[in-house]
Amino acid sequence: MAAAGGSAGPDPSLSPERGRGAQTSQRLLAYSDALLSIIATVMILPVAHTKIHPDQKLGESVQQLLLAKIAVYLMTFLIVTVAWAAHVRLFQVIEFIDDVLALLNLACMMIITFLPYTFSLMASFPDVPFGIFLFSVCAVVIGLIQAVIVAYGFHHPHLLNQQIQVSENQSFYKRRILKIILRGPILCFLAAIFSFFFIPLSYVLLGLVIVFPHLSRFITWCKTKIAGQSDEEEEHHSLETFTFYLSEPLSKERVEAFSDGVYAIVATLLILDICEDNVPDPREVEKFHGSLLEALSEYGPNYLAYFGSFVTIGLLWFVHHSLFLYVTKATRLMGLLNILSLAFIGGLPLAYQLTSEFAERSHNEIEAIQVSCVITFFASIFQFAIWTTALLYERETLHPFARYGGKEHAFMFAKLALYPCVSLGAFFLTCLLSEFSTAIFHLMQIIIPFAFLALRILVRISLTVIKSAMSLSRRKVVLLEEEEACLSPTETS
Amino acid sequence: MAAAGGSAGPDPSLSPERGRGAQTSQRLLAYSDALLSIIATVMILPVAHTKIHPDQKLGESVQQLLLAKIAVYLMTFLIVTVAWAAHVRLFQVIEFIDDVLALLNLACMMIITFLPYTFSLMASFPDVPFGIFLFSVCAVVIGLIQAVIVAYGFHHPHLLNQQIQVSENQSFYKRRILKIILRGPILCFLAAIFSFFFIPLSYVLLGLVIVFPHLSRFITWCKTKIAGQSDEEEEHHSLETFTFYLSEPLSKERVEAFSDGVYAIVATLLILDICEDNVPDPREVEKFHGSLLEALSEYGPNYLAYFGSFVTIGLLWFVHHSLFLYVTKATRLMGLLNILSLAFIGGLPLAYQLTSEFAERSHNEIEAIQVSCVITFFASIFQFAIWTTALLYERETLHPFARYGGKEHAFMFAKLALYPCVSLGAFFLTCLLSEFSTAIFHLMQIIIPFAFLALRILVRISLTVIKSAMSLSRRKVVLLEEEEACLSPTETS
Repeated sequence: MAAAGGSAGPDPSLSPERGRGAQTSQRLLAYSDALLSIIATVMILPVAHTKIHPDQKLGESVQQLLLAKIAVYLMTFLIVTVAWAAHVRLFQVIEFIDDVLALLNLACMMIITFLPYTFSLMASFPDVPFGIFLFSVCAVVIGLIQAVIVAYGFHHPHLLNQQIQVSENQSFYKRRILKIILRGPILCFLAAIFSFFFIPLSYVLLGLVIVFPHLSRFITWCKTKIAGQSDEEEEHHSLETFTFYLSEPLSKERVEAFSDGVYAIVATLLILDICEDNVPDPREVEKFHGSLLEALSEYGPNYLAYFGSFVTIGLLWFVHHSLFLYVTKATRLMGLLNILSLAFIGGLPLAYQLTSEFAERSHNEIEAIQVSCVITFFASIFQFAIWTTALLYERETLHPFARYGGKEHAFMFAKLALYPCVSLGAFFLTCLLSEFSTAIFHLMQIIIPFAFLALRILVRISLTVIKSAMSLSRRKVVLLEEEEACLSPTETS
Repeated sequence: MAAAGGSAGPDPSLSPERGRGAQTSQRLLAYSDALLSIIATVMILPVAHTKIHPDQKLGESVQQLLLAKIAVYLMTFLIVTVAWAAHVRLFQVIEFIDDVLALLNLACMMIITFLPYTFSLMASFPDVPFGIFLFSVCAVVIGLIQAVIVAYGFHHPHLLNQQIQVSENQSFYKRRILKIILRGPILCFLAAIFSFFFIPLSYVLLGLVIVFPHLSRFITWCKTKIAGQSDEEEEHHSLETFTFYLSEPLSKERVEAFSDGVYAIVATLLILDICEDNVPDPREVEKFHGSLLEALSEYGPNYLAYFGSFVTIGLLWFVHHSLFLYVTKATRLMGLLNILSLAFIGGLPLAYQLTSEFAERSHNEIEAIQVSCVITFFASIFQFAIWTTALLYERETLHPFARYGGKEHAFMFAKLALYPCVSLGAFFLTCLLSEFSTAIFHLMQIIIPFAFLALRILVRISLTVIKSAMSLSRRKVVLLEEEEACLSPTETS
C-alpha cells in the first residue's frame, strides 16, 4: 500500500502515496476535541442558571442543587468524556481519513452535541422516562456511527494505522476496537429499555458506562495478580504490544486539546453571563438621571467576580500547561484524574454565579464563597494528583527535569500545591472569620497571580533557606562529631 | 545562546538548551486561538437574542437589526480578528515563552474577553460615550500589555525567533513589531478621546483600525508601482527577507486553529439556545395531560432548524478543511477573505433563531429564510474567493494536486461551488414559489449532505461526459477534415 512512488507535495498533511484522497486526521481531531470539550462543559449552564430566590436560604438550595442537578451534570460530563475517550481510541486505529470518514465523524458530532439537551430534559424531569430514553438512543446512534466508521476503515485498509495495516490479525483488531466502542452503547441500550420499567436501574446502567472501562481494567489486574498468566493470554502475547497501545495511553496532544477546550469555554461562559445580565435597560438608566456610569456601578461586584473567576481559570490552565510540559506520556489513571479536575473546572461558572449573586448580600454570602473554595480546591487537588501519579511511574511519564531531584521538581511542586493550599486556607478562614469572608476571598484572588509571578524567586529563597539550615545542622553534626573525635582519642589514649 | 550541551529530553516541547525555563509556545497559542475565536463569535448573541414580537413585521425589524446591531457585531468581530492578527505577528517574533510571558499573555486574554461586554454596551447605548470609551480603554490596555511582552522578549533574546536572535538589527525589529502592535491601540486612544466630543468620529476611527493594515499595504503597493524602489527601501533591502516574513504570511496552523474555534463555538451556541428555550416548564407539561412527549412535539420545528443549522456549519467546516488541506501558505488577502467568511459563519445562530422562531408562522417566514440563505451564501462565497485568490498565485499557495490541471482541481471546484449555488438557488426559488419557501429550505438542508457524499462520483461522471462530448466533437472535426482532405485532392487534381 505504501508505494514509495508519487511526488510528495510540500504539505505534510496530504499523503498522496496512500492514494484515494487519504488525509491526515489531525485537524479533524482538533475540531472534534473542541466540539466535545465545549459540549461537556456547556452542561453546567442549566445548573448555574437555576433561579434561587435571595430570600431563600442558600444552604437548602445548594443541597437541592448538589443532590439533583450537579449529580446529573457530573454524570453527563463523564459520559461525554467516555465518548471522547472512545473517539481517541478509534482514531488511534484509523490514522488517515477521507471525505466519507470526515462526514461520518461530523454526523457523530452532531448527535453528541444534542446530548446536553437530553441532559436538560433529564434534569427537569428526573421521573419521566423520556429524557433518559432520548439520551440512550443518542448514545446508541453514536455507537452505530462509530461502528460504521470502523467497518469503513477496515474496508479501506490504507486508512489504518501502519501497524494494523501490515498485520495478519486485522479481524482480531477489528473485533477488539468494536468491543471498546460498542461497550457503552450496549449499556445505554439496556438503560433505554429499563427506563420504561424502573428508572433508577437506568441511572445505575448509565453510571456503569462511566466506570466500566476502569472497572474491567481493575478486574483484569486483579485476575493477573491472583491467577497469573492464563493460556489464552499467552496466546495473544504476540499481539500484546498493540493491545497495550490500544488500551493504555491517551495521546497526550488530544488530552491537551480537550483540556484547552474546556478551559477556554469556561472562561468565556463567564462573559456570556455578564453580557446577558449586566447590560442595563434604558429605562433603568433613567432612574440614575440618565447616567450610564452610575447605573453600571451597581454591577461593581459582578465585574470583580468576573475578573476573579477568569484569573482562577487562567491560572489553573497555566498550572495544567506547566504540568503537561513535563509529562511525556498520559497513562489511563492520569487521564481519569485530568477529567475529574476538568469536571470541577466546568463547575466554576456556578461558583461565579454564586459569588456574584450572593456576595455582599443576605445570609448566603459565606456558603457561596465556601462552595467556590471547594470547587477550586477539588479542581486543583486533582491536578496535584496527576502529578503524584506521574511521579509513581516517573521513568515512563515525566521529563528528567521534573523527576525527583530534577532541577524543576521543587518548583513544579510549589506551582501545583499553591491553589489547593490557598483555597483550603481560605475555606477555613471563612469558617473562623465569617464576617470578613468576602474580603478574604477577593484578597486571595488578587494575591495569587502575584504569587505565581514571584513563585520562582520564592522557591529559590526557601530552597536556599532549607539548604543552609540543613548545612548548618550538618555542620553542627560535623562539629559535634569532630568534638567527639577530639574527645575520643583523649579518652581512648 | 544555543549551547549544544545539555541532555535534550524526550519531549520536544521543552528546549532545555535555551535554558531559563524557555518552552515552545505551541499550546499557549492554541489556547489563545480558542479564546479569541470564541470571544469574536459570542458577540452574535445580543443580536440573535433581540426580541422581535411575532406580530411585528420582520422586514422592518430586520432592517433595524441590520443597520445597528449587525454593523456593530461585524465591526467588533473584525476588531478582535485584528487583535488576533497582531497576536500572530507578535508570537512569530517571540518563538519561545517562559512563565512570565505566559502570565502576561493570560492577562492580555482577560482584557480581550471583556471586549464583548463593551460591545453590548455600545449596541444598547449607541449614543452614550461610555461604551466606546470603555472599548477603547480595553484596546489600549491590550496594546500596552503586548508592548510589555515585546520589551520582555527583547530583554531575554533567547526567547526570540532564531533569525532575529542572530541579527545585528534587533532594535530595528523591535521598533517594527512595536509599530505593528501599537498602531491599533493608538487609533483606539484617539477614539476614546473623541468619544466625549463627537461620537461618529470615534466609530470612524474604530473602523480605521480594521482597514488600516490593508490600507497601508495598498498605499505602499501603489507607491512602489508609481515611484519604483526608493533609496530608503534599498537600504533596508538586506532586511527584506525578514520584513517580508513579518508582514506577509499568517501562519497556516493558526488560521486553521482560529477558524476551527469559530466553527466549533457556532455549532455549540445553537444547542445552548435549544437547552435554554426548549425545555418545557413542568406546568406547561400539565397542559398536555402530563405527557412530556406531546409537550415536546410542540418544538418540532426547532429541532429541525437545529439539525439543519448544524449540518450547514458542519459542511462549511468540511469545505474549509478540504480547502486548507491543499493550501500551503495563507497570504494576507486569503486571511482577510477567511475572516470575512467566518464573520458570516458567526451570523448563522441568527439564521437559526430566525428560522426556528418564524418558520411556519406569520408573514415573516419568507424573510427569515431569505436572510438564512443570504448568510449561507456569503459565508460560502468568501470561501470560494479564498480558493480563487489562491489560484492567482497557485505556485506559492497551492499543492500541485489542486492547481489548474491537478487531479483534484475539478473536485475542489465542485466542493466549493456547491453551497453558493444551492443557497443562491434556494433564495430565488423562495422569491418565485413563496408558499413553499420552508419546504424548499428544509429540502435544501437535507439534500446537501448527500450531495457531498456523492460529489466525487458526480464530478467524475460529469467530467467523463464533458470529455466524451469533447472527443465526439473533436472526432466530428477530424471527420470533417478528413472529408475535406478527401475532397480537396480530387478538386486540386
